[in-house]
Amino acid sequence: MTTIKLDIIGYGGMGRYHATTIIPKETNIMVNGVYDIDPERLTLAEKEGFRIYSSLSQLLNDTDSEAVLIATPNDSHKELACRAMRAGKHVVCEKPVMMNSQEFAEVLDVAEETDRVFMVHQNRRWDEDFLIIRQLYQTQEIGELFQIESRVQGANGIPGDWRHLKQHGGGMLLDWGVHLLDQLLFLVDSPVKSVVSELSYVLGDEVDDGFISYITFDNGVKSLIEVGTSNFIKLPRWYVKGYSGTAVIHDWDLSGDLVKQVGQVAHHELIPVQAGQGLTKTMAPPSEDAAQRLSLPAPVFEHPTFYTNFYQVIRQDAAPVVKNAEVMRVMQLIEDIFASAEKRAVIHY
Amino acid sequence: MTTIKLDIIGYGGMGRYHATTIIPKETNIMVNGVYDIDPERLTLAEKEGFRIYSSLSQLLNDTDSEAVLIATPNDSHKELACRAMRAGKHVVCEKPVMMNSQEFAEVLDVAEETDRVFMVHQNRRWDEDFLIIRQLYQTQEIGELFQIESRVQGANGIPGDWRHLKQHGGGMLLDWGVHLLDQLLFLVDSPVKSVVSELSYVLGDEVDDGFISYITFDNGVKSLIEVGTSNFIKLPRWYVKGYSGTAVIHDWDLSGDLVKQVGQVAHHELIPVQAGQGLTKTMAPPSEDAAQRLSLPAPVFEHPTFYTNFYQVIRQDAAPVVKNAEVMRVMQLIEDIFASAEKRAVIHY
Repeated sequence: MTTIKLDIIGYGGMGRYHATTIIPKETNIMVNGVYDIDPERLTLAEKEGFRIYSSLSQLLNDTDSEAVLIATPNDSHKELACRAMRAGKHVVCEKPVMMNSQEFAEVLDVAEETDRVFMVHQNRRWDEDFLIIRQLYQTQEIGELFQIESRVQGANGIPGDWRHLKQHGGGMLLDWGVHLLDQLLFLVDSPVKSVVSELSYVLGDEVDDGFISYITFDNGVKSLIEVGTSNFIKLPRWYVKGYSGTAVIHDWDLSGDLVKQVGQVAHHELIPVQAGQGLTKTMAPPSEDAAQRLSLPAPVFEHPTFYTNFYQVIRQDAAPVVKNAEVMRVMQLIEDIFASAEKRAVIHY
Repeated sequence: MTTIKLDIIGYGGMGRYHATTIIPKETNIMVNGVYDIDPERLTLAEKEGFRIYSSLSQLLNDTDSEAVLIATPNDSHKELACRAMRAGKHVVCEKPVMMNSQEFAEVLDVAEETDRVFMVHQNRRWDEDFLIIRQLYQTQEIGELFQIESRVQGANGIPGDWRHLKQHGGGMLLDWGVHLLDQLLFLVDSPVKSVVSELSYVLGDEVDDGFISYITFDNGVKSLIEVGTSNFIKLPRWYVKGYSGTAVIHDWDLSGDLVKQVGQVAHHELIPVQAGQGLTKTMAPPSEDAAQRLSLPAPVFEHPTFYTNFYQVIRQDAAPVVKNAEVMRVMQLIEDIFASAEKRAVIHY
């Protein structure tokens, strides 16, 4: 079947990353052209070998392309998505999909009305660190996972672009939180039971510069999700506990540890250790026979790449890997996290 | 002034640690004798060179000693403390002081009525790891600390003694939580604003095998306190964020890191880094000129040892380092943590 040609709306960091890094690896998708409101970026796109449009209308009227990628500030997604679908285009949309779930519901109505494919680029479902945790969750190599801590921390504050402005949908909960929450809900096959959270405003921006949220699920899984932009030292990217072991992934480089229980701890044989001004048996190392250090499993994902899947959804009526109902659930969870932080209360489902 | 002779009630792990490790270092306090309901422990105490009593009454009637140490299971503290003070003894009590704040209030009434000194052995105020964090809090070397994470994690479960039974006041919140919360309230000079918490019961004990609690203060400090007994890999003992840096203490060995901001991050100069399937500027390392790795400060404590202070309180009318009002505040906070976990709600003050 024929290649899908796609136009890119927005040639900032992400649009350019799709154009020059992600899509060139695909065999069935190619970039058709680029539009950006910023003439400098258009010039850059042209220099990098892409056809450019002088207006959005010109892009939408180009019948060469079947699809668009929306890689613009968050507050423009809704209008662009609706216009593109009404112009007959399938849509790939950058995250966070919309400013709120209400906007997203309206966009999904338009997708249905126009019979267009609308898929959100939740690319971090393909992150290798996440896939390792997913393996542990599915294979139960360290037992059923009951505690999942997922953190992304840096010390750069919020980038000095639209991401630090409220009207454009800035802030870390919408920017990075949407990734971590999407991964979490994709991982844990259970309804959310409760959410409590707090946003951080230590840098003096009008939007949150990070957050911590504690999410419990009906199946007993507890999760701590945290994003920080004033952390000069990072806690591990992942810290997960199973009933018979613990695993850690330190960073994007996939360095980490897995320690598995292989026997029972013999309490009467534990030797108390000096810890500060006191002794502790409880916090002594587990007896050597009871724990074993192993390698983390290899990342495995049963799905094709995001864009291959997008192609298959359009051409072969395949199921999307990133389902809109899932994206909606994440959007609603984000709203509940905002609400929990504002009300300073636990939200129960 | 004359040495204070002290009798020890309870010759388990802690009683023996006081007798053989802590008190021998003191110049003004000495062990007078030992009582335990377990004949084997009495035999051990005798072998280790201590005079032993055949009954509690015999101990309390011995006019050679002015004070007692109570190092028995938690549910026996109240009766022993009251009897000892009514017999004219000053009291050092192991932690957690009582089963609840009501019991503690009754004991404090008896202390007032009998004019005896009652001091709780919150020894971890003298832990070097804590004193390093206290230095950072006071000197503001990395700016005002606004986030304090204090964790103690092990993989041994709850020791198979009275500590895993509810009737004796077992469970990790009372056992280890009382230390971490005492340190926190001693550190942060501000009223608590809110508490939310969850207890862990993954090991199938009738008492909590760990907990996580998130505590905010009126002065803006936020704190995460966590104890775990099913953690085969440990997160750092301390993780603290100041407005211009982050510090970590990994373990009791005081290994750790301190990274301090020394300049402003130039956002336009940040180079996005590949992170999983995406690029990030926000989570790129801070530019080299903007952060500096330094040594942790040395631990400093302006107070004498616990027992020297106990001596000074009795002989010289000094102020106690561990004040009963502080211990009461911790006891009430523990009750609120239990309540928050049970109600699954944020408690506001």
